[in-house]
Amino acid sequence: MLNGAQALLTALTRAGLDTCFANPGTSEMQLVYEIGLGDTVRPVLCLQENVVTGAADGYARMAGKPAFTLLHVGSGFANGIANLHNASRAHVPIVNIVGANATYHQPNFPEHEMVGGTIKDLAAVVSHWVAEARDANEMGPLGAEAVSQAIRGGGRVATLIAPTNCHWDPASEAPVTSEPEAIPRAASSTLQHVASLLKNGKKTALLLGGAALQSTQLELAAQIAAACDATLVGETFPTRLSRGAGQIKIPLVPYFVEMAQAFFSPFEQLILIGAKSPVSTFAYRGLPASKIPPHCNVVSLVSVEQNIAHALTELAAMVGQLNHAYPREERPEILPEPGQDVALTAESIGRAITQYLPEAAIIVDESATAGLGINQHCVGAEKHEYLYAVPGASIGNGLPMALGAAIACPDQKVLALQADGSAMYTNQALWSIAREQCDVTIVIIKNDAYAILDVELARVREDAPNSKMQSMLALDNPSIDWVQLAKGLGIEAVSASTEASFYDALKTALNTKGPRLIEACIAQNLQPVINMVMQQKQKHSDE
Amino acid sequence: MLNGAQALLTALTRAGLDTCFANPGTSEMQLVYEIGLGDTVRPVLCLQENVVTGAADGYARMAGKPAFTLLHVGSGFANGIANLHNASRAHVPIVNIVGANATYHQPNFPEHEMVGGTIKDLAAVVSHWVAEARDANEMGPLGAEAVSQAIRGGGRVATLIAPTNCHWDPASEAPVTSEPEAIPRAASSTLQHVASLLKNGKKTALLLGGAALQSTQLELAAQIAAACDATLVGETFPTRLSRGAGQIKIPLVPYFVEMAQAFFSPFEQLILIGAKSPVSTFAYRGLPASKIPPHCNVVSLVSVEQNIAHALTELAAMVGQLNHAYPREERPEILPEPGQDVALTAESIGRAITQYLPEAAIIVDESATAGLGINQHCVGAEKHEYLYAVPGASIGNGLPMALGAAIACPDQKVLALQADGSAMYTNQALWSIAREQCDVTIVIIKNDAYAILDVELARVREDAPNSKMQSMLALDNPSIDWVQLAKGLGIEAVSASTEASFYDALKTALNTKGPRLIEACIAQNLQPVINMVMQQKQKHSDE
Repeated sequence: MLNGAQALLTALTRAGLDTCFANPGTSEMQLVYEIGLGDTVRPVLCLQENVVTGAADGYARMAGKPAFTLLHVGSGFANGIANLHNASRAHVPIVNIVGANATYHQPNFPEHEMVGGTIKDLAAVVSHWVAEARDANEMGPLGAEAVSQAIRGGGRVATLIAPTNCHWDPASEAPVTSEPEAIPRAASSTLQHVASLLKNGKKTALLLGGAALQSTQLELAAQIAAACDATLVGETFPTRLSRGAGQIKIPLVPYFVEMAQAFFSPFEQLILIGAKSPVSTFAYRGLPASKIPPHCNVVSLVSVEQNIAHALTELAAMVGQLNHAYPREERPEILPEPGQDVALTAESIGRAITQYLPEAAIIVDESATAGLGINQHCVGAEKHEYLYAVPGASIGNGLPMALGAAIACPDQKVLALQADGSAMYTNQALWSIAREQCDVTIVIIKNDAYAILDVELARVREDAPNSKMQSMLALDNPSIDWVQLAKGLGIEAVSASTEASFYDALKTALNTKGPRLIEACIAQNLQPVINMVMQQKQKHSDE
Repeated sequence: MLNGAQALLTALTRAGLDTCFANPGTSEMQLVYEIGLGDTVRPVLCLQENVVTGAADGYARMAGKPAFTLLHVGSGFANGIANLHNASRAHVPIVNIVGANATYHQPNFPEHEMVGGTIKDLAAVVSHWVAEARDANEMGPLGAEAVSQAIRGGGRVATLIAPTNCHWDPASEAPVTSEPEAIPRAASSTLQHVASLLKNGKKTALLLGGAALQSTQLELAAQIAAACDATLVGETFPTRLSRGAGQIKIPLVPYFVEMAQAFFSPFEQLILIGAKSPVSTFAYRGLPASKIPPHCNVVSLVSVEQNIAHALTELAAMVGQLNHAYPREERPEILPEPGQDVALTAESIGRAITQYLPEAAIIVDESATAGLGINQHCVGAEKHEYLYAVPGASIGNGLPMALGAAIACPDQKVLALQADGSAMYTNQALWSIAREQCDVTIVIIKNDAYAILDVELARVREDAPNSKMQSMLALDNPSIDWVQLAKGLGIEAVSASTEASFYDALKTALNTKGPRLIEACIAQNLQPVINMVMQQKQKHSDE
């Protein structure tokens, strides 16, 4: 007879799960034992829980199926919430298994019980589905249900809380497997309505999100756009975008609301395909919350929780023949040489990537303010998958996602573009990348600041910020030595502050199998962005 | 006229708060601006939120008043939950200020909004009091209320969620200050009942927790114990214990339930003074949940939320004269010399501390399994305050607490005894310790494992654990180089693996002002503990 832990593990593996990102504690020892006893599950130890959950995110985005996590009680779950938030906002499937005190011991209020609520209360905030097993017999069925819930729609976060007595008690019922639910389709009336809108002659943008940005769907969307003279746009924070030479050209909605409003101003209608109508990440006094100007009519074709491929296939058939070929990204004919003594910038990092990125690579992007320059100049790189690390705007997902993507795709090079401030939240991921000898090149983009906040502080001030204010946003005292930090965690590392040295380091890292870190010290000037923000602020206060 | 941010800050500072541990984001820029403009608040930047909340914990335990934290939206709050859990379980006062999306923008579901709940839902789980401002006029009054709530009883966690429009809108009402509530007292009938129990001739232990372990209360408790031939015992995880040469001698309840049951077996009655009746941190199959044998009668004198000093003063007066002087810790006459080529052990770390700890130091203890040996051999060190880092059993509070304690007491040396696995959760604290040039000596106790889990895994197995199981608990692949890690984050560091080199490094660090880290590579043998656990398991399954 199985015990509850065995029943749960059997249910998870029967449903196809074979990878576990884990930070176990006492209440997960039964599962550690069972995982260790068998050969169906690969456990990946992580030294902090946002590494666990972020790795599960990166894994699922590339594997197309969930991993499961192993998390320890309420506080361990809490440590992983931020990256579960990113995953849940991006509709990435994750199955969380959270150990808990024995059901009969919880009322004794031992140390791990929380003063104002339960693990379930915490889990509900970032999960689409939560359950807590009350006896061992529930472990198998709830495990199967968790996987079924996680793969619904565009993907969801499912959390199963498993008290220890449910692990060790005998489970009399045989494990079951749940059939995955069919993904709901867009209504045919909606398809017809959108098809008619696309023929009304208005200047139209198609805003793609979720799975619509992966190459098969992107090709369908490009057919539709070409047939209707529409323009493709990607959501600001793409979960997974097929990008690079030969792929469909698609700009992303700018992050700052002022830039986004300007971007959309030419358009009269916007069709949402797996995306929500874009709003500003934050509200600002006197600025609109929507990124779409009022004159632009917004209509949704299909949501991220519906079947995007089906909707695009149907719509493509309805709108008919292409007027012209939709533009594709092209590899530049001339790749500029790096300057020998030229200070490294975000722009030159972008050009270096264009030059050296191998085909079929995976870029995990948490480059924050440097991303503006990098992505503008990383055009025509070899075909790759681009994963925006923080769709929930909660920083610190980049390094964990790089770990997870590399575990999912061991034959593809992963390039992590990682801002320094964000990297610090989950630097523990470097250790797991070293442990697993993942084929990951990490570029730490070092500007010694939470630079985005320099822009945000500019929105507050009447006068220039003083040094006490700036000290709350600065990482330069002390300046972090990422080479030592990486070596301390077992990863080879070099520092580069000129174009030539960075090109050299990137070429070596991308041509060498295994983990490498490059500390890229950049010269950054955010004044143009700050000026833009200040001008718009002035304009709005004048109106 | 003030705006909401100014009104809130005025309320906090009028209530006596002057220290802010911060990891701000866009929604906190108004407060960053106001803190930076004035000179009433010292901001301490931390690079991850469990550092923020853990530092606030360490600060409050030593300052005797709360700091306030500045946290960014739901995910930032979530990153700090684990250490808020530790603080809330230990009744340490903390005021959290959490920025949030503008009230009118939350329904637009921008990136930071969570899929299944709100910041308030998260905060409620680890807070004794939560409120969310709905307009700027509420900011001052709610700020005052938050402080008042935090300092109630033994100390509490109070969380105020502050949407951005409440910061920038004008606040028409003047800030108010709340009067702190009187701490409830033990009923006189309870005092009389306990006084009579103390004279019934039964073998009695007084279990002290919370503020009962600080020297003034400890002296009162010792008077009572001496008058009634009772024995003093401290809770397993003391929030703050006055310890060292000349202080009252008080053993702590053992962590493992098997050891605790044996410890309490001679006693017929147990009086709780600021402590709960102790239970096992985890339940184990076939083992009791309570640490107290059934024959022992448990009676509570005063809870941690009541006035402990008052209850002890009253009881001391009721029980009358001392029978004898209660034993005190004594400085050993002979301090053994370190062995030149002898491998470093937990025990020798304890002896080195006894030798070199300066008077009035603060020990922050998250030494995990090594703590058994260290604390047994750290007897008769100069007087110090001992802070157990993780009263909520959620690991990773030690380094943040050392930061906070050092900010609260800049003239006292802080010694952080920190297990390596736990240290990794919040290694970011090293940067803040360097930034603030705190007078902290950090001893990283390196055994390259989550060693406690080797004990816990032993409870599961029938056979010896295999290497796949052990790999899920081991930190030796790669072995973390704490010297490089610390230097990368701006802290001087050395490694020691012999008694002599450790004594030398500890002496230097404790005699030098400013931050230093010692990587203490220990030879550890947990087999005796594992054997004890296995024997008890066998004994219970035989019964």
